[in-house]
Amino acid sequence: MNSIDDIRLFLDPKSVAVIGANPNTGELAFNLVENLARWGYEGQVYPVNPAHSEVLGWKCYAEVGDIPAGVDLAVLVTPRTTIPDVIRQCGEKGVRAAVVVGQGFADAADEEGRRLQDELVEAGRRSGVRVLGPNTMGSLNPFADFSTSFLGLFDVQRRPIGVVSQSGLFFTNVGRMRLLGKAIDVGNACDVDITEALDYFAQDPEVKVVVLHIEGVRDGRRFMEVARRATRRKPVLALKTGRSEPSARAAVSHTGSLVGNDDVWNALFKQCGVVRADNLDELGDLAKAFLRLPLMKGRRVAAVSGSGGAGIMSIDACVEHGLQVADLSPATRSRLQEMSPRWHRVGNPLDLWPLVMGSPADVTKSLRTALSLLLSDRQVDGVAFFGSAWFDGLSPSLAEVIADTADAFPDKPIALSLCEGVIYDIGAEEVARKLDEAGKACVFSNPDDALRALSRLAAYAEFLRGA
Amino acid sequence: MNSIDDIRLFLDPKSVAVIGANPNTGELAFNLVENLARWGYEGQVYPVNPAHSEVLGWKCYAEVGDIPAGVDLAVLVTPRTTIPDVIRQCGEKGVRAAVVVGQGFADAADEEGRRLQDELVEAGRRSGVRVLGPNTMGSLNPFADFSTSFLGLFDVQRRPIGVVSQSGLFFTNVGRMRLLGKAIDVGNACDVDITEALDYFAQDPEVKVVVLHIEGVRDGRRFMEVARRATRRKPVLALKTGRSEPSARAAVSHTGSLVGNDDVWNALFKQCGVVRADNLDELGDLAKAFLRLPLMKGRRVAAVSGSGGAGIMSIDACVEHGLQVADLSPATRSRLQEMSPRWHRVGNPLDLWPLVMGSPADVTKSLRTALSLLLSDRQVDGVAFFGSAWFDGLSPSLAEVIADTADAFPDKPIALSLCEGVIYDIGAEEVARKLDEAGKACVFSNPDDALRALSRLAAYAEFLRGA
Repeated sequence: MNSIDDIRLFLDPKSVAVIGANPNTGELAFNLVENLARWGYEGQVYPVNPAHSEVLGWKCYAEVGDIPAGVDLAVLVTPRTTIPDVIRQCGEKGVRAAVVVGQGFADAADEEGRRLQDELVEAGRRSGVRVLGPNTMGSLNPFADFSTSFLGLFDVQRRPIGVVSQSGLFFTNVGRMRLLGKAIDVGNACDVDITEALDYFAQDPEVKVVVLHIEGVRDGRRFMEVARRATRRKPVLALKTGRSEPSARAAVSHTGSLVGNDDVWNALFKQCGVVRADNLDELGDLAKAFLRLPLMKGRRVAAVSGSGGAGIMSIDACVEHGLQVADLSPATRSRLQEMSPRWHRVGNPLDLWPLVMGSPADVTKSLRTALSLLLSDRQVDGVAFFGSAWFDGLSPSLAEVIADTADAFPDKPIALSLCEGVIYDIGAEEVARKLDEAGKACVFSNPDDALRALSRLAAYAEFLRGA
Repeated sequence: MNSIDDIRLFLDPKSVAVIGANPNTGELAFNLVENLARWGYEGQVYPVNPAHSEVLGWKCYAEVGDIPAGVDLAVLVTPRTTIPDVIRQCGEKGVRAAVVVGQGFADAADEEGRRLQDELVEAGRRSGVRVLGPNTMGSLNPFADFSTSFLGLFDVQRRPIGVVSQSGLFFTNVGRMRLLGKAIDVGNACDVDITEALDYFAQDPEVKVVVLHIEGVRDGRRFMEVARRATRRKPVLALKTGRSEPSARAAVSHTGSLVGNDDVWNALFKQCGVVRADNLDELGDLAKAFLRLPLMKGRRVAAVSGSGGAGIMSIDACVEHGLQVADLSPATRSRLQEMSPRWHRVGNPLDLWPLVMGSPADVTKSLRTALSLLLSDRQVDGVAFFGSAWFDGLSPSLAEVIADTADAFPDKPIALSLCEGVIYDIGAEEVARKLDEAGKACVFSNPDDALRALSRLAAYAEFLRGA
């Protein structure tokens, strides 16, 4: 078996033993056996607990060794002092992968926690059992209707995203991170670590974008080697926390991680082509952008808006994020000028209002024409559109125009931000939802977020070109 | 009449002449007369247009001079070349305030636009007519069910916020700026300008927070004088756009503004105690924070979370925004330690999970106790809570605990960010909505935004103390 096969046991086991299973039911029971049934997991489930002969209709075994068939994965929810022994029993049974859910190991303040973690690592190594955790939600694989999470799961879909985290937080939907796909929470990372999980997702054909939440890694050189290979295959995004001295201290007590200097991490990410996000919302924005949008081949942006004030904000964001304000070609300029009142001089940013105010009913037609002109321009690498969702009441709808245009220009990204509908009740969220479904363009909360996303698409393209 | 009375005419007129009114109806007619009826404006409305004898049931007059009663405000929607003449007619009629909606003046590329703006300014000055615009949505006053906006209005409520903008964008709901109260769009600011509108809102008892969108001001010294007075009375927040050379150029063509160097603006805002926001979402966040939360008396934050990983993110944001990680007093520490398993050492950030995992049903009780302990601590000036909305399914609900706690500690702000519910369908948005209604605490999109808001509350308190 190699590392890839090992990690697959955590994400796609054909049979699972839940050691420490109990018959409690209901949402506050945090009962993994019940969760697995609810999620429709189709593999074998073997509850293990000497105190029960049955758990929720499944036969319950006193020990893992009593299970009369092979077991791919064991999930351990017994008290911390029992864990090393249970790992050894797993090894004897031939179970090759174990998730240790509980806390109180290297994350604890006491000596015993550290000792117990050392002991369980040793037990795993000697018994041939790979260990995920401790202090972890474990794994999540919507493609197999499987998770070891003791919490319920929310809005889980078969998204081609692989999340590697050091916190169960990522098994919930937090901020704009509504993009859970497969996930591995390495917790204290006593054995399976971020690097190994990254390596797995880099090679997983069901994963198109890898998202990392890093507090620290133990072997920086190995992480770099793997990250460098991974980013050649697919985008790798990272939220690195524990950036300052007080938060780094907190990280040590959270997962026992070695955190490292933040500047070193910046340099490392840059060298490896890992795209860094500074907070959770940025991470969610970038995951969406890299999943849906084409890379940006250069840094030249055309900014279109339904308001002059909004256009100026877009240009501010453009410059802030190291993008360039595209110098529109004379042909584009003159075509746009023909659509405008005589007194108005078109430019970049392009304010659509003077172009449409004479015939507001034609606004989507004008928008379609303007977007096509900009995207056809060889001086433009991508478009930021800051518009109003009230266009959507018109026909054809804003969402349709954007989706059509994205189809027609698959090589240039369109990043949107929208203000609320002011005439119709169809609001910005509705347009965003429609575009989400079409999967062709991304809506961000404001121009700053939209332009940041475009800049990261440009930076990753530069990395791939060796620029 | 003084400036205050002048501005009041734009926001709270008892009678309005709509010059250039037409009988078109429907949402794409942008018919102000129809809008006013729809919004329930109770003042007099006088359509003016020589081509019609009636507009939507109102008698229509050929000229403003024909109206048989006094008129507080005229809204001009006639072609640009007619505007100086119509302003003169307004003056003769005794109308002392006029909104010029149309574009094509100093915002235009042609000489005629500039000449027409000069001419209308001169006409207003000689006739005693104050002019708002041109190139403007005009005014909005939900307290009087009044607006000169030709667009529909969305989610307008009587919020104690005064918005001064150079873009109609702010009459829509954009990003997180869902906090429209009264608003004045100065447009090209040929007469009524940002400074005068700021001065008005600073003295308006219905306004508690002033929000500025600035592309540029003509008289920096006067702006500073007024801003310095205003910030002593109430918080003034500003989004200054046109920050870079290309966006400043765009601003000149948008509203003909003089934009100025961004560093100069930073220094100016700091000296005047104006709180700067870097983008639209920040502006919305800060408006909410200053409206709902008490100021922060110092910079010491206690961060509470339902996840160790989230606590570390909170501390990262704390340091990033110049706040301090509070050193909890021994008494607080020992009370919290009593709630924890023996192996866990409590600290700041405080991870609630080890405190509650033994009895998850008591989670809101534990949260209530922990929050009270932290807020009672004299070493703590404010609390950032990053929790999970799944708590809300329990009784009493998360929203209730937070609102109660905010009531009990009215002098210290609580800033929240929430991940989605993972058990219950009651999600983060529902909790945020409940807290919005209670008006006691603020929910932000992520810890970074929550801590940024706290830092601005601390900075403004320092300004008021003369620190």
